[in-house]
Amino acid sequence: MANVQPRTLSGFMELLPARQAQFDHMADTLKKTYALYGFTALDTPLIEASEVLLAKGGGETEKQIYRFMKGDTDLSLRFDLTVPLAKYVAQNYANLTFPFRRFQIGKVYRGERAQRGRFREFYQADIDIIGDGKLDISNEAEIPSIIYKAFTAMGLRRFQIRVNNRKILNGFYAMLGLTEKSGDIMRTVDKLDKIGAEKVAGLLTGEEIGLTDAQADEILKFIAIKGSNAEVLTALEGYRGRHELFDLGLDELNTVTKYLSAFGVPESHFAVDLTIARGLDYYTGTVYETTMLDHPEIGSICSGGRYDNLAEYYTDKQLPGVGISIGLTRLFFVLEDQGYLTDALNTAPADALILPMTEDLAPAIALATQLRAAGIRTQIHAEQKKFKQKIGYADKLAIPYAIFLGEDEINAGVSAVKDMKTGEQVKLTADEAIAHIKAGLAKLNEGLPILDKGE
Amino acid sequence: MANVQPRTLSGFMELLPARQAQFDHMADTLKKTYALYGFTALDTPLIEASEVLLAKGGGETEKQIYRFMKGDTDLSLRFDLTVPLAKYVAQNYANLTFPFRRFQIGKVYRGERAQRGRFREFYQADIDIIGDGKLDISNEAEIPSIIYKAFTAMGLRRFQIRVNNRKILNGFYAMLGLTEKSGDIMRTVDKLDKIGAEKVAGLLTGEEIGLTDAQADEILKFIAIKGSNAEVLTALEGYRGRHELFDLGLDELNTVTKYLSAFGVPESHFAVDLTIARGLDYYTGTVYETTMLDHPEIGSICSGGRYDNLAEYYTDKQLPGVGISIGLTRLFFVLEDQGYLTDALNTAPADALILPMTEDLAPAIALATQLRAAGIRTQIHAEQKKFKQKIGYADKLAIPYAIFLGEDEINAGVSAVKDMKTGEQVKLTADEAIAHIKAGLAKLNEGLPILDKGE
Repeated sequence: MANVQPRTLSGFMELLPARQAQFDHMADTLKKTYALYGFTALDTPLIEASEVLLAKGGGETEKQIYRFMKGDTDLSLRFDLTVPLAKYVAQNYANLTFPFRRFQIGKVYRGERAQRGRFREFYQADIDIIGDGKLDISNEAEIPSIIYKAFTAMGLRRFQIRVNNRKILNGFYAMLGLTEKSGDIMRTVDKLDKIGAEKVAGLLTGEEIGLTDAQADEILKFIAIKGSNAEVLTALEGYRGRHELFDLGLDELNTVTKYLSAFGVPESHFAVDLTIARGLDYYTGTVYETTMLDHPEIGSICSGGRYDNLAEYYTDKQLPGVGISIGLTRLFFVLEDQGYLTDALNTAPADALILPMTEDLAPAIALATQLRAAGIRTQIHAEQKKFKQKIGYADKLAIPYAIFLGEDEINAGVSAVKDMKTGEQVKLTADEAIAHIKAGLAKLNEGLPILDKGE
Repeated sequence: MANVQPRTLSGFMELLPARQAQFDHMADTLKKTYALYGFTALDTPLIEASEVLLAKGGGETEKQIYRFMKGDTDLSLRFDLTVPLAKYVAQNYANLTFPFRRFQIGKVYRGERAQRGRFREFYQADIDIIGDGKLDISNEAEIPSIIYKAFTAMGLRRFQIRVNNRKILNGFYAMLGLTEKSGDIMRTVDKLDKIGAEKVAGLLTGEEIGLTDAQADEILKFIAIKGSNAEVLTALEGYRGRHELFDLGLDELNTVTKYLSAFGVPESHFAVDLTIARGLDYYTGTVYETTMLDHPEIGSICSGGRYDNLAEYYTDKQLPGVGISIGLTRLFFVLEDQGYLTDALNTAPADALILPMTEDLAPAIALATQLRAAGIRTQIHAEQKKFKQKIGYADKLAIPYAIFLGEDEINAGVSAVKDMKTGEQVKLTADEAIAHIKAGLAKLNEGLPILDKGE
């Protein structure tokens, strides 16, 4: 009867149960952290009218869109969570309270060229704070601090959030009289990490952009400013007074740096970095990228920034905001690929497996009910199989406790609880079993999905 | 600049934040309950190769599929979670441990005719237990007991899980020599609730099915067997010994009934009901439907049953299973529509809103950090707004506690914590504030999303 080979499309991540549990633990850590900071969950459709989703139009993204007709309707799958947020806020403006803090963790779709580590269906995990007309600068420090907390809670250690401010960049180019060319320049400078200073200089003075050697030098000197955050900020003070926008950006960057510390991000985990520009014209203030210190080649694992006009295609209301996005599927792939995922996390589908040794299952069911009422995830293995196979089931799934319940135990009002790791087996009443298992689980459930072996 | 009207497609549910919190609470209740019973979470792609997804082919469903080409690839959006499960189990057979218990809560797509309360994108929440070759009957009692626990935990009271066994029906028709026609008969009998006994008899003796009056009478008499579960089971004993399949089905139904009680489902919440057949040939043993007692017109809110061959299109392995599915989006719509959703649930995006009264936000940030570390969901309202507007923000979002932090409080090492409901305001240290707020939240968080006003 079987006539179709079961397969999953290339570019679509589908995980085995234990890996799925690790992924879900990471997603849950994000949800819990976002909620602690007062963000509300949104869930928008995966399909939107193409006219709405592609209101901005053009660009590289549009070619990758999953777009199709259903009857007479032109539909598209969302390619990020920002455009649906813009739509949502514009559409529900009258029913929302600002500043509007929302998180969304959801799948998005891009028809990328099939390639190892590139996904066509992938999760993004976004937080944004949207103001009505105005938005305080402190939000620009709080957003990356949330990411710091979330990554740390997953077990990630060696990462750094790199921060810059677009006003500083735009102000600097204005000083040099290069405002018109600033977009081209920033896109070029963005390649510094990849192609090096010499090639960047070549591109800047090339025909297309056409800077003088002196201008290119000044730009490279500027973006070469490095050192501790205090050193970089001090170096930037040397440019103060030459352009209003630059000065405003520097004030913002000082404030963000100060509040990042207040929000608990240690100096080791954020760096003022003038090379961060984010390619998009969309951003107008603070911008972020996040790198894994031991794997800079992976690029940013979490990026975002401040923007002035979230929903300009849908409403004339001025809706400034600040947001950040994690490409969760790609991050998970990278973590697995680089050996960061450990089995320290309890990924078993159950905490206890009851093995009934009597034909009547009622006593086993009663015990399971008690365990579950106490919050212990419990299965009953009621299949007609050999004892060895049943124990093998617990073993394969790494279920930490097996509980044997035979005639003798039932008559004595106990069950035999076996710690599958140590092999230790004790006869306990239901209440004792619950306490015993919970004590063991408390330790077991301290495990995190990520083990960051870096210093 | 605004040039596109923001809108959401018809048939796609998109909720405002407080409603979304209610929906998420229901979904989380399902997840927690499923996990307590040892089910592992799966997350399969929304898009599959059409060839794979439509392996079974034909049927009403295929017309509703969202199917499209991307480049040369023929793709379809999943229309349920069962076919992707079948694919997954067949594909990963060697890496899974059986019985395999999985839950999945995810969106599925059907191009239904647009109609109030009908959704084109909707959540299904499924649990299934898949055996390798065999599967014990006790699983057929455990599955509906999980649904009982989950619905009860949401606040739903007046519902009933109706249980039958396809072997009883098939055995009964075999007794009458009507095996060949049993499919047609069952589809007709299924309409009993909607069109009444007389019209059903008319259809049964009509040209298409062609039963004798005596046969139709016997069928109607059989499915009219009503009463307490014990009464129905006793009446069924009267047919014992006339057909092997019937007898086997009756044994199974007796066992399921017995274990349903053992699993803690009260007699008031399940009924042996011989009219339940489930239209699909797929089911071979116990079948379930769940009705809201005060709204039978809504039909089943949770259905499923036992099947013998999950993945016959993908593998020659015999994979019997039992599963049940909740149409969560539709259920949510119905609950809202019928006035079951209450504001008893705490749907605020935060538990506490800090209102800093000083220019330097550092003390407010430090307090927020302490509250968050204690698990209190906290926002800082740092916007340049009038005091009244800031309090209005807490009010509109139903944030239960507002915390004022001015120069005086900072110097005294306290903050002023206001209970937004009672208006009571007290000056407390950070530790006192945490204890105070947590005590209040404990009560507040007892609220459930559903208030079932029925007796």
